[in-house]
This record gives sequence, C-alpha cells and structure tokens, in this order.
Amino acid sequence: HPVSQSLQSARRSGALGESYLKVRNETLALARGLSDADATVQSMEDASPAKWHLAHTTWFFETFLLETQLAGYQSFDPSFCYLFNSYYEQVGARHPRPRRGMLTRPSLEEVWTYREHVDGAMLRLLETEPAEDILNLVELGLNHEQQHQELLLTDILHLFAQNPLRPAFHSPEPLAVDEEGPAALSWKSFDAAMAEIGHEGEGFAFDCEGPRHDAIIRPFKLASRPVLNCEWLEFMADGGYRTPTLWLSDGWAIANERGWNAPFYWEDRAGEWQVMTLRGMQPVDPAAPVCHVSYFEADAFARWTDRRLPTEVEWEHAASLHKLQGNFADSGRLRPKPPVAGQGDDELLSLFGDVWEWTQSPYTAYPRFKASAGAVGEYNGKFMNGQYVLRGGSCVTPGGHVRATYRNFFQPDKRWQFSGLRLADDL
Amino acid sequence: HPVSQSLQSARRSGALGESYLKVRNETLALARGLSDADATVQSMEDASPAKWHLAHTTWFFETFLLETQLAGYQSFDPSFCYLFNSYYEQVGARHPRPRRGMLTRPSLEEVWTYREHVDGAMLRLLETEPAEDILNLVELGLNHEQQHQELLLTDILHLFAQNPLRPAFHSPEPLAVDEEGPAALSWKSFDAAMAEIGHEGEGFAFDCEGPRHDAIIRPFKLASRPVLNCEWLEFMADGGYRTPTLWLSDGWAIANERGWNAPFYWEDRAGEWQVMTLRGMQPVDPAAPVCHVSYFEADAFARWTDRRLPTEVEWEHAASLHKLQGNFADSGRLRPKPPVAGQGDDELLSLFGDVWEWTQSPYTAYPRFKASAGAVGEYNGKFMNGQYVLRGGSCVTPGGHVRATYRNFFQPDKRWQFSGLRLADDL
Amino acid sequence: HPVSQSLQSARRSGALGESYLKVRNETLALARGLSDADATVQSMEDASPAKWHLAHTTWFFETFLLETQLAGYQSFDPSFCYLFNSYYEQVGARHPRPRRGMLTRPSLEEVWTYREHVDGAMLRLLETEPAEDILNLVELGLNHEQQHQELLLTDILHLFAQNPLRPAFHSPEPLAVDEEGPAALSWKSFDAAMAEIGHEGEGFAFDCEGPRHDAIIRPFKLASRPVLNCEWLEFMADGGYRTPTLWLSDGWAIANERGWNAPFYWEDRAGEWQVMTLRGMQPVDPAAPVCHVSYFEADAFARWTDRRLPTEVEWEHAASLHKLQGNFADSGRLRPKPPVAGQGDDELLSLFGDVWEWTQSPYTAYPRFKASAGAVGEYNGKFMNGQYVLRGGSCVTPGGHVRATYRNFFQPDKRWQFSGLRLADDL
Amino acid sequence: HPVSQSLQSARRSGALGESYLKVRNETLALARGLSDADATVQSMEDASPAKWHLAHTTWFFETFLLETQLAGYQSFDPSFCYLFNSYYEQVGARHPRPRRGMLTRPSLEEVWTYREHVDGAMLRLLETEPAEDILNLVELGLNHEQQHQELLLTDILHLFAQNPLRPAFHSPEPLAVDEEGPAALSWKSFDAAMAEIGHEGEGFAFDCEGPRHDAIIRPFKLASRPVLNCEWLEFMADGGYRTPTLWLSDGWAIANERGWNAPFYWEDRAGEWQVMTLRGMQPVDPAAPVCHVSYFEADAFARWTDRRLPTEVEWEHAASLHKLQGNFADSGRLRPKPPVAGQGDDELLSLFGDVWEWTQSPYTAYPRFKASAGAVGEYNGKFMNGQYVLRGGSCVTPGGHVRATYRNFFQPDKRWQFSGLRLADDL
Ligand SMILES: [Fe+3]
Ligand SMILES: [Fe+3]
Ligand SMILES: [Fe+3]
Ligand SMILES: [Fe+3]
Repeated sequence: HPVSQSLQSARRSGALGESYLKVRNETLALARGLSDADATVQSMEDASPAKWHLAHTTWFFETFLLETQLAGYQSFDPSFCYLFNSYYEQVGARHPRPRRGMLTRPSLEEVWTYREHVDGAMLRLLETEPAEDILNLVELGLNHEQQHQELLLTDILHLFAQNPLRPAFHSPEPLAVDEEGPAALSWKSFDAAMAEIGHEGEGFAFDCEGPRHDAIIRPFKLASRPVLNCEWLEFMADGGYRTPTLWLSDGWAIANERGWNAPFYWEDRAGEWQVMTLRGMQPVDPAAPVCHVSYFEADAFARWTDRRLPTEVEWEHAASLHKLQGNFADSGRLRPKPPVAGQGDDELLSLFGDVWEWTQSPYTAYPRFKASAGAVGEYNGKFMNGQYVLRGGSCVTPGGHVRATYRNFFQPDKRWQFSGLRLADDL
Repeated sequence: HPVSQSLQSARRSGALGESYLKVRNETLALARGLSDADATVQSMEDASPAKWHLAHTTWFFETFLLETQLAGYQSFDPSFCYLFNSYYEQVGARHPRPRRGMLTRPSLEEVWTYREHVDGAMLRLLETEPAEDILNLVELGLNHEQQHQELLLTDILHLFAQNPLRPAFHSPEPLAVDEEGPAALSWKSFDAAMAEIGHEGEGFAFDCEGPRHDAIIRPFKLASRPVLNCEWLEFMADGGYRTPTLWLSDGWAIANERGWNAPFYWEDRAGEWQVMTLRGMQPVDPAAPVCHVSYFEADAFARWTDRRLPTEVEWEHAASLHKLQGNFADSGRLRPKPPVAGQGDDELLSLFGDVWEWTQSPYTAYPRFKASAGAVGEYNGKFMNGQYVLRGGSCVTPGGHVRATYRNFFQPDKRWQFSGLRLADDL
Repeated sequence: HPVSQSLQSARRSGALGESYLKVRNETLALARGLSDADATVQSMEDASPAKWHLAHTTWFFETFLLETQLAGYQSFDPSFCYLFNSYYEQVGARHPRPRRGMLTRPSLEEVWTYREHVDGAMLRLLETEPAEDILNLVELGLNHEQQHQELLLTDILHLFAQNPLRPAFHSPEPLAVDEEGPAALSWKSFDAAMAEIGHEGEGFAFDCEGPRHDAIIRPFKLASRPVLNCEWLEFMADGGYRTPTLWLSDGWAIANERGWNAPFYWEDRAGEWQVMTLRGMQPVDPAAPVCHVSYFEADAFARWTDRRLPTEVEWEHAASLHKLQGNFADSGRLRPKPPVAGQGDDELLSLFGDVWEWTQSPYTAYPRFKASAGAVGEYNGKFMNGQYVLRGGSCVTPGGHVRATYRNFFQPDKRWQFSGLRLADDL
Repeated sequence: HPVSQSLQSARRSGALGESYLKVRNETLALARGLSDADATVQSMEDASPAKWHLAHTTWFFETFLLETQLAGYQSFDPSFCYLFNSYYEQVGARHPRPRRGMLTRPSLEEVWTYREHVDGAMLRLLETEPAEDILNLVELGLNHEQQHQELLLTDILHLFAQNPLRPAFHSPEPLAVDEEGPAALSWKSFDAAMAEIGHEGEGFAFDCEGPRHDAIIRPFKLASRPVLNCEWLEFMADGGYRTPTLWLSDGWAIANERGWNAPFYWEDRAGEWQVMTLRGMQPVDPAAPVCHVSYFEADAFARWTDRRLPTEVEWEHAASLHKLQGNFADSGRLRPKPPVAGQGDDELLSLFGDVWEWTQSPYTAYPRFKASAGAVGEYNGKFMNGQYVLRGGSCVTPGGHVRATYRNFFQPDKRWQFSGLRLADDL
C-alpha cells in the first residue's frame, strides 16, 4: 500500500507495520551502494550527509514515538538526540546544520545498527495497537522518511558533482533516447470558477496542505507539458541569461554574482552540453524537461515567452482530477523522462513526477492554518517565509508520496532540487 | 491639491504645475537643514545619501520627461545619468548602489542648482500642455519624489543614529506626553464577503495597486489601534526575544545573529529605554505605537498574543471606507503619536499615518498585473520577491501620498523604516 | 626649522613653538580646499576621512599634553576623546575605525575651531617652558601630525578615485613631460662590512628607529634609481601578472582574487594607460617611478628581473651618507618625478622622496627595543606583525619629515600608499 | 637509519630503499585505524583529509620521480595529478584546497592500492641505482612524507575535535601523571658571539635551512624548559586574555573576534579545564608544556612575564650542540610530556620534541637563498610571507625528522599545530 493512502482504524496498526517495513527497506535499498565516506561528507550547507538522513529519520521515530510511547524502551545512544535533531527547538539543543559533515563517527555501519534497533522497537510498538494519534505520528514519520529519501538522492547528486571524477550513483550507461523528438506544446484551458483547494478528510497529508478552503479561479490555461531542454537552449541562445529586463531584480543580482549561464549541473564540454546526473555525466536530452533551475530562472524564462508561471491554486485545480502517476523514483530512471503526447490534445503530460514545478505562489499559511501543538508543530509552519511552492513531485520522489494537494517549497535561488517549470497564462 | 487626486485633463497641466512646485518645495524644506556632509554619507547599503535622493528624483524628471519631451532641453550634466540612475536597466549603466556615499562631488550646492535647472525646464514643459501620457509621467514623478522624501527622512535617522553624538534632525525638545495613558484595545469585526480590492479609475496610483479584483473575505476582526510600546515592553519582559518557538525559523536565526533584544534604535540607558528619533534621543513613550520593528518581530509578537497579522486584503477591506487622515510628515511631529480613543468602540485608530503596518502578505503581483512598457515598467514589478506588504503610511510619509490601496513593501528583516503592526484574528 | 632637527634645550620651547605653528599651518594649507563632504567620507577601512585626520592629530596634543600639563585647560568637547582616539587602549574606548566615515558631525567647520582652540592652548603651554619630556612629546606630536598630513593626501586620492568623475585635488593641468627619456639604470656596489644602523643621539626619531645596533653587510649592489613605469609596462607585457611562478603564494592568491593587472589607479582608456592622481586622471609617464604597487607586486617584479629587493639594513647603509633631499610634498608636484641622471654614475637618484621603496624586511623590533611606558608606547610597537618596511619617503611626505633611519611599514597587499621599489642584488 | 642521516653515495640507493620502506610503513601504521569517512572529511581549510595526505605524498614520488625517471612507468590513474597536486604551479592545474574534503572517491581502499603501486615502482627505480640528483629527490620525498605524517595527526585531532563525541584517535586511557610537580624554571646564558647558523654539508636539509651564514649573537638567556600549563593558567587568571596592552594589535583583534580565552582545544567542563587530545578528552596536565597556542598568544604571554620570545638565530645557536632527542611521535605518547629536570642547572629540557617553539623571527629567506630550479623550487620559497619560524619539533613529529637547523613556519593566528613556547631575554 502507498503510505499516504487511507487506512481504516481497526486494521491500521497492522497495515502501518507493513508500510513501516516497506518504507524503511526502500531507504536501505537506496543507500546500500554508498561508502562510509560518501555517506558522511556534507557538500554544502543546504545539503546533508546521507548518513545524517539515515540517522535523523530514525531519530524522528525514536524521539516522537519510542521515548514516550514504548514502555521500557532503551535509547540506542543518548548522544544521538543532539547529533540528529534537525531543527526542533522544543526537543532541545542540536549539532549545527553546517557542521553535519564533521561527524565521521558514528560510522555508517553503526547508523545501520541504529536503524535496526529502532525498527525492532517500532514494530513492537505497533503490535501494542496504539491510539489513533500515535498511529498518526507513525504515518507522519514514514512520510518524513520518504521526504528524506528524496533529499538523500538530491544531496548525493550534489556531492558527486563536486568531485572532478563525476562518479555515478547509479549504473552510468546512457539511457535510450526517444526517437520521436520533443513533444509538441498545447494548452489546456480552465474556466472561471470558485474552486476548493487543500487537503481534507481521509488519507495522510502534511499540516500545511490544509485547511481546505475556497479559492477564486480566473480563466487561465496551462501548458500540456513542462518546459523542455530544447526550449531552454533557445532561451540561452537568445541571451536569456544576459538580459536583465527578463529577470526579477534579486534574481538578476544572484545570477550575475554566481555566474549562471545554464541550468545547474550543465557543463559545456567541447561545445556539447552535458549534465551531471545520478547516472554520471550524460548528454543533455533535448526532449526531456529542463531540471535544476531556480525560481528566478523559471520566472525569467516565463517572461521571455510572454507567459507566466501558474499559481499553486491553478496548479492544484488542474491536478485535482488528474491521475496520480508519473516518473517517480521507483522507476529507477532517476532522471526526468521526455513526455510523450497521448491521444487527447488537452492532456497534461508529466504533471506528476519528473520535475517539481515552480509556481508563482509564495509559501504561506492557508486561511485558518494552525500549527500542531508540541514539537511536531515545528514541522512546516516556521518555514513559511521567503520560499515558493513547487508542485507535483519529481523523478527522485518516492512513488505514492505526493498528491494533488502536496506543497513542496524552496527559496527562489535554489537549484540543487529536481525543479523545473510548466507555463501558464491568462485567458 | 494633494498630488494623488484626480485632475481633469483640460486644466490638468496647470494643476500639475502647481503640484510640481509644491512637492519640489517640500523636498527643499525638508532637506534645508542638512550640511554638505550630512547629505553625502551613506550609512548602509539599504540607505542612500540625502544628496542622492535630491538628485535622483530630479534625474527622474530629466530622464523620463525632459530628455525626450522638451525640445532643445540641455541636460545639466551628462555624467549625472550614470550617477543618479537607481536601477533602471533600460536607461543604462549606473553607479553601484553600495557606493553612493563615495560621491563627495557634485556638492550639495551643485545638486540644488541641478534641481533649479530641471524645475525651470519642467515648468516650461508643462506650459506646452503636453499629452495625457506625459502628464501621467509627471504625476508619477511627483509621487516618486514623495516616496524619496520619506526615504530621505528614514535614511537620515539611520545616519544620525550611527553617530555617537546622536544628533537631532529636528528641534530636540521633548514632545508633550499625553496624560491619559495608553488607549485601550478593542476589536472591529468584519463579516464574510466577496470584496474588491486594488486601484481602479480616477486618481493616481502606482501600477502594483491594480488591477482591481475580487477577493474572498473570511470573517475576521482587526485591532482598534496599532500595538503600543507598553505592550512591546511586556513582550520583552516575557522573553519574547529569547523564545524560539514564537519565531519564524529565518527570523530566529537573524534575531540571534544580529543580537536583537528590542526594537531598532532602542537603547537601554541606565535601566531606562530610550530611542533614537529625528528629534534625537528621547524616552520611549509607552502609549505610542511601537516603531522600527521587522516583520519577523511583528510576526513573533502576534504569535505571542495568539493572534496574527492581517492580510493585505483584510487591511484594505477595513480601510477602504475609512477617512484618509492621520499623523503624517506634514504634522512636523516626525514620531508616531499615541492613538486617542474617540467616541465609537469600533473605530480604527491610527490606521493611516504613524507607522506602516506589516501585513502577512508577501508582495506579489495582483491577478493580470502587467508592468508598463518601457523603463518605468521597472518601477515596481521586478521587486516582487521576498518582501512583505505594509499598509497605511507613517509619520514620515508626506500628507496626501498614501491611500487605502497603497502597497509599501520591504524584506522581513528590515527595521529602519517606520514600521509597526496592528493585530488581527479569525472569527 | 625642520621639525626633526636637533634643538638645544635652552631655546627649545621657543623653537618648538615656531615649529608647532609651521606644521599646523601646513596642515591647514593642505586641507583648505576640501569641502565638508570631501573631508567626511571614508572610502575604505584602511583610509580615514580628512576631517578625522585633522581632529585626531589635534586630539593627540590635547590628550597627551594639554589634559595633564596645562593647568586649567578646558577640553574643547569631552566626546572628542571617544571620537578621535585612533588606537590607544590605555586612553580608553573609541569609535570603531571602520565607522569613521559616519561622523557628519562635528562639521569640518567645528573641527577647524577645535584646532584653533588647541593651538592656542599649546602655545600657552610652550610659553611655560616645560620640561624636556614634555617637549619631547610636543615634538612627537608634530611628527605625528606630519605623518597624518601624508595620510590625508593618500586617503583623499583614494576617495576621489572612487568617484566616477575622478575629481582633481590639485590643479589638473598636465605636468611638463621631460624630453630626455627615462634615466638609464646603473648599479652602485657596496662591500662587505660591519655597519651600524638605527637612530641614536640628537634629533627626533620614532622609537622603532632604535636602538642603533651593528649589522652585517654582505657585498651587494643597489640600483641607481627606482623602477620606472616604462619598465613596469614591460613586466606587464611579458605576462608578469599572469605568471604564478613569479609571485609569492599569498600574493598570487590576492592578485587573482582582486583582479590585479596593473598598478593601482591605472586605467586602460581606449588603449592608453592613464592613472588617477592628485591632479586627476593623467597619462602614465614612462620615465617616472612606478607608484602604488604592493609588496607582492614589487617582489614579483624583482623576481622577473632575477634581482631582489634590498633589505632595510642595505637600504639604510646606502642612504646613511646620502644627501637628504628629493621630491617631497613641499614641491607641490604631488606626483613622482622622473629621476634625472647627474654627473656621477654611482649616484643614487630619487633615494628620498618620490616613492616609498619596499624592502624585503618584515617590520620587526630592533635588538633590545622596548616600547615607551604609557599610552605613547602603543605608537609603533604593537604593529610589528605582518608588515614590511618601506624607506625614503614619497612625493606626499612633508619635507624634513624623513631621514635615513626612518621606517615606514605596511601590509604587503596595500597599494594606496605612494609605494614603489628599487632593485638590489648580491655581489 | 633515520632519514636525515648522511648516506654515502655508493650504498645510498640501497640505504634509501630501506628508508623508503620504513617511512612509508610508518605512514601505514599511523593511518591504519582510520575509517574511510575519518580519512575523507576536511575539517577546515587549513587542514587536509588523511586520505589526501596519503595520496599526495604518493603523488609526489610519482610526479617528481616515476613519471620521468622510471622507463615504462604506468601512472596509476591520470586524474590523480589533478586531485593530489598541492600547490605546484609548474605541474599544472589542481583541485582547490578548500574542496579537498569533497573527494569521497577514490576510496581509502583505492588510495592504499595507489600507494602499493607507487611503492613497487619506487623500489624498482632505486634498484637502477640512479644518479645523485635523483636520490636527492627520493630523500626529499621521504622527508616530505614525514612532514605529512605530522600533518595527518594534527589534522585528525582537529577533525575529531569537531565531533561532539570527541572520539579518541589513540587508546584513551589517561596517561600516568608525574608525581613530582612542574619542573622549576632556570635560565641558560649565552655570551655575545659571531655565530654561524643554517645547514651546510652532509645530511638532508630543506632548501630554506641554508645557506649557512654568520649571525650576530647578542648576550641573551634562554629558559630551561618550555612554558607549562600551570604557568598558562596563571596568565589566564591574571586576565591575560582580557588585557589589550599585552597583545600585538592584530592579535588582540583576532583574539576578540574568535573569542579566545584559553589555548585551543581547552574546554571548561564544570570548572575543570580539559583538553581534546589524540587520546580524547583529558584533564589539562599542569606540569606539561602548554600546547596549541598561537604566536599571538605566545607573544602576549612573554610580554606578561616581561620577557620575550627568542629569535631563531638564538634558538639555533643554543640548540646546535644539544643532543637531538626528545618526545617525538615514535614514543606513541602523542601528547607533550612534563619536562623532568636533570642534574645540571643549565640544561635545556624538552628543546626537541613535545611542542614546536614559536620564535619571534618572521620566516624569511636566508642571505643568498635561491629556490631550486623546477617545480620543487616551489617547495618552500613562495611561502616566505606573513609567517613565523617555529623550532624543535613536537610530540607528533616523526623521530629523526628534525634537527637544530630545521625551520617550521606558520601564520601567527594558527593554533591547531602542536605549538608552544620557550622564553628568552636580553642579558
Ligand atoms: Fe527531517
Ligand atoms: Fe527612485
Ligand atoms: Fe595617529
Ligand atoms: Fe606536500
């Protein structure tokens, strides 16, 4: 069962036990190939070491469940609370984020043992058929683990890209290139409406996805597929990175300061654009969605086309009836896939998976949002500043993790996420 | 006539001529007391020298009107376009913002001469009874000048606060303290509604104030007056600056990094809180609205009270029928004034003037907003990132400059503006 | 009388009174043309505002002499001790150096009044025919004033160079160019010897110039003149700024970081090298000594020629019998002058004046050096780290200020001083 | 045989082969206990990962010997020249120093294989009985390897100190504390003399140790032992870290900026001073030499005692006839050992080993020093700026590596080296 699916309360403990094992084993499967060193180094302040992700997600279960809910639970190592607390002020002091890469001890081996210790205890806890609110925390913990699965892949790509050897995380043989060429662009139109957006009712969702509320839809249209690399190359050829009037003022300053002239991870190798991927250096695929662009770049591109980015309300309105499928991490591809046009003109291709799609919406609280009581209330609410919402998941998002109401968010200058864009416009 | 008032096209040139002289002379009256050195130094990157404000507003008229619209106009000094262009990419290269304080030449004297040169030419231009779009640019230029009048005062306060002598910009005798004590707090309630917000029709407004559009009002209430210093002192006494759970994550990081423990310009002098003002160091007035607080502080304060900041939609909805009066720069007070409760319980005191009120709304484009064509299109649109909207004007805003639809905006860590807050809550 | 000349104790008070007036008036003559704004702005942390120099040298007399030695002396303004103390820990807290440019008050006018106030009191003090150690402090104060005269010119050049208008401090008409071409280079040889260096006996010297002590001279030769601009152009043409093996490791890192490709203040204007000077932008004079080069550049140049910089011992040994004359500030030229070969081959041209000559000697204490007791002991000793000695004075050094034993010192990356070099080599 | 011992040319190849194996195996023995992660992380820019040290010293042999001198040599991996070149501009481009910790690949395992590959080839090269200059390079390579052995230990201590778990590199049981109390301080006097210092003749020395030259000795005395922790505690108790007049100006600024209040690695744990060591956290031993102090601290301490640091000439003069023995890395102690007074009053205890002793001498070229031709000429010469000389070796210096003429050097703010001090004074 996908984690986010609704579980009936009677059999919920058992089902969560199964989900628990599945999700935790997926983490193991993902990280199995990493060496002790790969898992330890922190490549920049925004990224965390894989070992830290592995331990932190485990600490989450230990801290929010085992310490208080499992009678007689022995913490694996009391120092881990300091080491692996991410940002929960109510839990206590913690190792500073920029220093996560200093922790050569505990070793990766010990962290695997830590995970086993906590997994055993968690299964014992679930056997006690705990109350609903406890089960809700377990479900939160599993969704949290999935978020860190994606971050682990994202951060490993960043680390490997710092190495002049450009090592491949996954078998480096080139992916088959589709013969058919880039999918044509069409538009799907939406009428004026009073819509509802946000999560409500059954099934897991993060707190920031609610409360569900009404929203005004003004007539708009949405592109049938994300912006592709071939289009981005045109933007570049037309001086997109050298034309200040296309950019937000902050974006232009940052683009110049950091010398941006192509998406992150792109390298001009003897006149051919290549890109660092989880499969090592690969040629840029013209038919695939552009990836690793910041909000600032996405916004500049949209202005270049005289279109705009969608709002998150528009995106969710369009996605709410859409089939929740796409190129997620489960496919093993770990790269965005060229969208392939189907039967109908108005279909929205690659809406889920492939690349997170920047919206023009700052990440703010929905009307009447209240953070939960206690430390888990720090999960999302305190980050509602200076970020933009991205929607739809990516090729490194675990399958079953996202949904139409799902809100991801990052600062507008961030590029190391698997982020792209889809155009919108007024009607 | 206030500048922003609608002017009928037939007599508009003449009326604008009068407004022009009035606004430009107000600038002169404001800056008259500054020495050459006072007017030249830049106290931080966010601030500009007074001389730069005086020249830049003049350059605005010269560049956007005289150079192209007045036959035979001789530019005062061709190098001024480089020196005094603020951020208009379409106009050309410019002196870097952080280096504005290096310009000891031209002298303040020469800048006054520059202003006279341009004023003469502008009056000649207006005598030609130019077309509507030209007159619109003149009106924009005058509103632009007023914005810089406020910035000039704001920046001078910052500069003088850097001087250990804490010089007074204005006569330093202490203001009379009201005997009556702080105004009591009450709430005005608003029902659910579909409202319209934004500018439309007659009278001047900046581009970002439109298009006018419908917006959903959810039942809410608004405090009868801004938060006062006496309340802020309680927040401080209760550990407001030491309690991370009250703060946004970014805010907490910045508050610690910069050692915030009180509003900007407050100084603990032998156990008494004093504050640097345009009238020099003065005791903090418990009954006056708190001023010079960042969005982060305003938001933390609201969380401490278990209330919230209003959205800009809510603020404008409440203000739209309110009388446009308050303590503006014209009063000569140049400090926020204690609100005095009137007859009715539901009156909103100090809604305009005194302190800019932080809203919880990020500064974004209204639906279907399009920046103007040409360089003046850079006026607002390119700054729509990472800022929050403030409403209502302050005690250093020129009288007649603001209105209910007026949107000011700053980054959430900024404190040198005359910014405060008014609480709101859901009903 | 030049300040540094020996004064017999009987008539010393009177003579010092004359010197006092002369030196203080020279400062006035230098700074007279500066506006309030020119005198207030600080162009970088290394530089100080002219107004600060004017007040600080005055504070020196007030603090070290008037406050303790003149009965009934009324300090001009008690806050000035905080504002104008440079770095004397024993005198008390002080305004931070990087914030010296924030002081728009006191005005330049008030500082001139401050100077008059102190000058009057100083003359009264000298009339009391104070003891030797007091007179020594007066002499120190005058030499201190002269150092700041040079710094004032150096810092004003830096400030004016930040202004895109490149204003001239002094009448900007071009200097007559010598027709004769660059002076030929010859070498003066020196035999092995046991020499004595350092100050001893009559006449003023700074503490760091002593104690006089013996030093081993190994056979060496010294260039007949400083390195000229025409030679520096060859170094540039030969890739001097692009060849890492010519540079110290720290120098190479800094040269790249800061983008050095020519001496400081040089600008390539349409293919012609021009240089910002106290007389505004001027063509680079090929026959004049190169100026505004860092130690790192001087050292790289010497390596390029396969020669080396002299040690300070060698320089002083060569200079000790040399006539103390040259192109100093008194000439009013305020730029290095092309050396003109005289009669004898072995003459050392431009040894004094024109440009400070970098030596390869770190600035360290001479054997048995002890800093003076009290606050004036902080004058030199605490800066003996990370700096190199320069010798001989420059075209902005007051006439009569330097001597053969004089040790100037700056960090190896500094370029805003009037610093050049003279080559040496082993024999 | 110690590496630095003179080897007669006939049997030199064979002897060097033995030395080669011995030194390379010592490196193996040192680093054997490190995990892949321990060996990969870079804890600060000044430090390098252990893996990098292991590979870089190997690259040195490969680059300067095997590539050009061993016919048919196959380089282990062509990319390693980019990865493991430290700073040799003449060898080519290289991985930036601050990014050395990004190299999770090659793994530690692969680096060990690299070492074996190069060791085999080096032994084959030595079997060819190559010419003197080649053998000199081998000897240089071995001394280079020993320098990096010390750096590896120094850098690992720094890394482990960043980990809140404070892991021990070496068995953490506390060392036996000597019962006898701190060794008393006496002084050894030296007469005026014309001495010779620097290396000449047989035996290995680095280029910067020569040429041997005469130097003036002025009467001085040297402390019988280094400054001890118990004395440093007195300095601290007397406000040493809070008294600006004890410090060089640069040192005072840095000490405040970085919050120094005790030697590096000291931690106040519930009122007891402990210190992070290669044996984990240990109580500070009052009788042991103080270690991990910067030049700035050493200089301030000396001023506090009214003594001074010795010059390097004085140190070498005193050490030149001294027995070359002490507490080096071979003892396995890896911490400074309390000096134990012997029979004679004038003996200089702990002169070699224990802690590097800061001298007051900037690291400069000796008279007539010329860097070698070719890339190895970059070994020392280009670093002669902004550093001070340290003498005598430390408890992590390999036995047999140092000698009386040996010059170590670091910037005056560095504290992570095993650096201490010995007092001197004029007579
Ligand atoms: Fe987390
Ligand atoms: Fe403006
Ligand atoms: Fe001074
Ligand atoms: Fe090395």
